Amino acid sequence: MTSFPSPLITLTTDFGNRDGYAAAMKGAILTVCPGARIIDITHEIDAHDVAQASQVLASATPYYPPDTIHVVVVDPGVGSDRQPLLLLTPDAGFVGPDNGVFTEVLKRLGKPVVPTIQVDAIVDHPGQTHRATLPADCTAYVIDHEDLWRQPVSQTFHGRDVFGPVAGRLGAGVAPDRIGTAIEYVEVLPDQSVRRQQGRIDGTVVSVDRFGNLVTNIRLARSAKVTNIEIAGSRISSLSTFYTEAAGLLAIVGSHGSVEIAWTQDSAARRLGVGVGTPVTVRGDL
Amino acid sequence: MTSFPSPLITLTTDFGNRDGYAAAMKGAILTVCPGARIIDITHEIDAHDVAQASQVLASATPYYPPDTIHVVVVDPGVGSDRQPLLLLTPDAGFVGPDNGVFTEVLKRLGKPVVPTIQVDAIVDHPGQTHRATLPADCTAYVIDHEDLWRQPVSQTFHGRDVFGPVAGRLGAGVAPDRIGTAIEYVEVLPDQSVRRQQGRIDGTVVSVDRFGNLVTNIRLARSAKVTNIEIAGSRISSLSTFYTEAAGLLAIVGSHGSVEIAWTQDSAARRLGVGVGTPVTVRGDL
Amino acid sequence: MTSFPSPLITLTTDFGNRDGYAAAMKGAILTVCPGARIIDITHEIDAHDVAQASQVLASATPYYPPDTIHVVVVDPGVGSDRQPLLLLTPDAGFVGPDNGVFTEVLKRLGKPVVPTIQVDAIVDHPGQTHRATLPADCTAYVIDHEDLWRQPVSQTFHGRDVFGPVAGRLGAGVAPDRIGTAIEYVEVLPDQSVRRQQGRIDGTVVSVDRFGNLVTNIRLARSAKVTNIEIAGSRISSLSTFYTEAAGLLAIVGSHGSVEIAWTQDSAARRLGVGVGTPVTVRGDL
Repeated sequence: MTSFPSPLITLTTDFGNRDGYAAAMKGAILTVCPGARIIDITHEIDAHDVAQASQVLASATPYYPPDTIHVVVVDPGVGSDRQPLLLLTPDAGFVGPDNGVFTEVLKRLGKPVVPTIQVDAIVDHPGQTHRATLPADCTAYVIDHEDLWRQPVSQTFHGRDVFGPVAGRLGAGVAPDRIGTAIEYVEVLPDQSVRRQQGRIDGTVVSVDRFGNLVTNIRLARSAKVTNIEIAGSRISSLSTFYTEAAGLLAIVGSHGSVEIAWTQDSAARRLGVGVGTPVTVRGDL
Repeated sequence: MTSFPSPLITLTTDFGNRDGYAAAMKGAILTVCPGARIIDITHEIDAHDVAQASQVLASATPYYPPDTIHVVVVDPGVGSDRQPLLLLTPDAGFVGPDNGVFTEVLKRLGKPVVPTIQVDAIVDHPGQTHRATLPADCTAYVIDHEDLWRQPVSQTFHGRDVFGPVAGRLGAGVAPDRIGTAIEYVEVLPDQSVRRQQGRIDGTVVSVDRFGNLVTNIRLARSAKVTNIEIAGSRISSLSTFYTEAAGLLAIVGSHGSVEIAWTQDSAARRLGVGVGTPVTVRGDL
Repeated sequence: MTSFPSPLITLTTDFGNRDGYAAAMKGAILTVCPGARIIDITHEIDAHDVAQASQVLASATPYYPPDTIHVVVVDPGVGSDRQPLLLLTPDAGFVGPDNGVFTEVLKRLGKPVVPTIQVDAIVDHPGQTHRATLPADCTAYVIDHEDLWRQPVSQTFHGRDVFGPVAGRLGAGVAPDRIGTAIEYVEVLPDQSVRRQQGRIDGTVVSVDRFGNLVTNIRLARSAKVTNIEIAGSRISSLSTFYTEAAGLLAIVGSHGSVEIAWTQDSAARRLGVGVGTPVTVRGDL
């Protein structure tokens, strides 16, 4: 008989599904919060790819009920001086390393105060982050109350020993200020810039999905009149409204709300030979 | 404390587990049905492979409790004129595109009225479907009550915006005729033919599992006396009763209830160099 | 409304996530135990790799709440004379084939009585097991009460027809002696030996995780002073305390509690070109 709080707790990691890591973390959550309902967002983030985790997280979490707790463990600096973070937005709780992994979630809430940096900076300095002020309606805590952690704490697996147990405690009703110490700043990843000029928006591919669709960071106003979209030397003359409307290369406003480059029943990434970081230009009355 | 209906809702998609698509869909379900218990059948259907999804679905759903809701999103025509479908069988509810993905489920209930078509037709015209009358004990609805969908509806992701929310509503107790309009016909895939003659059954491989076992569409009567099984120029002289009984190539009545070609502790698909569509012949007193 | 027992039941199999096998098994569990909360440990064990399953199982199950039921189906001998087993430890229930898959779980409880065998024996005779006496605080049963199985029982899929239903019944409150007949012995895999000499421990790599970390079977006393660690002709001069402390090859006490060989932000397995079975030597005041 379930007679415990039964919070929704989601997991986003680079643990993969072959080893027992994700499962050990689930056990650690259920041990402190027996009624937890755990949902996998993904465990297939590329190893150590904080930027990818940030994108995937922001593509899924907005669709969850209020008060869901989202745990992220893509944590190349585990055991070093990077801080464990609890972030509370108006909609949800987020638990994970303070390494920029919540950048895209914060951007959708209202962009944190940080200078925009060229995409080159990301490629040249992967993992480099910048301190940003929190949006006004968010609060954040450094997770430092070690009595709520699983003991002994491993040097290499804070998902199981810190982030999982803390998320479970939060779900079980423990107050945030029992979990950590309030802070005013969080780390964010350098921005993949979008340049808006008269009649033209320049952006980049920020993720490639399983179908080979190229998701960009270009968002269009509802009133936008597109003349053409350019990527990798190919020019697309208009936006499609569904994937099978055109044959071959097409552009569409995808489910992420931004411009997506696709190929009918095939992979645009493979057909064009491009991926994350590829420049995309939209022209028209934007 | 769970105080909501807690329906079982399963998911079968070609979304993969790397992106946030399946997770966004789960969030959309939980938003309208907070007590839903969501089970993944698989998200690893090959992209756009409706026939494969149909096979996998029918191999798992018969083992679920009554009133389970099965959602399928393998939907190459998303956004086009293909219809969203709610299908109610005596055992379960099915939600997904009306593109033939429920063909195998319907066949196990009593074959829908549709002419059998040679397997060549499938290879030559992938995605082509035929209108079939529903079995008498089933009902179906075109999902057209848009007030129950997630708004705004994306042009490319009806799993999150249509099928997920509708399955959640159904699980939460909304009546089928509040969800859609009753119809008499559904689309089915062309049949992969099985030819029965005196002393001989000719069928085909319809799926290959992770172990490389070749699952056929040949079902044998309990009284059948098999003389031999032929595939790709190899002849197997009798049915085995377990996988390690013979060494090397063997045939067995597998867990799907049909003849399966296997290789002891190895992949028959790789050893024989064959796959879906390969002809198989069983001879004997059948 | 959930008004059933809601036991935690975990699954560890080599079924993969592409086919409907794991999902069919979940349906079979939920049919006899509608409130079961099912957690995947993994379905990505290499096909038929009982030793790998044993390692993964022992790396995750210790973190689960008491009374969790762990089901394992890595079962190359399905349908042969290998016995179906129910094992009860002080912490949990385990259900699966009696083919050695619970070896590592038993070792962590107190080593079962069995002679240590060189690692060569594992490579030369994969699948060979030895009869071992149970630890005093464990009980075991041959699962032989067929009235609790799903009927008809497939010759090839006991996960769905035997192990799943039996785990569900156990979770629903059926007593162990209604499920099977008590036995005194279980099968265990040959031991991957660790040799301890003055100033030196020789062990082996027992698993490689998704990050390419090489997990060994060498456990160190808290007081150990390590002089160096040797693997594949490379010598590491000290233990690190986190993965990014050194650049390149490093050794660390990992989350499994044993010595792990890693490579900063890269795969040690790929860099060194080694894997399971590779010898590792630790020297020092141990």
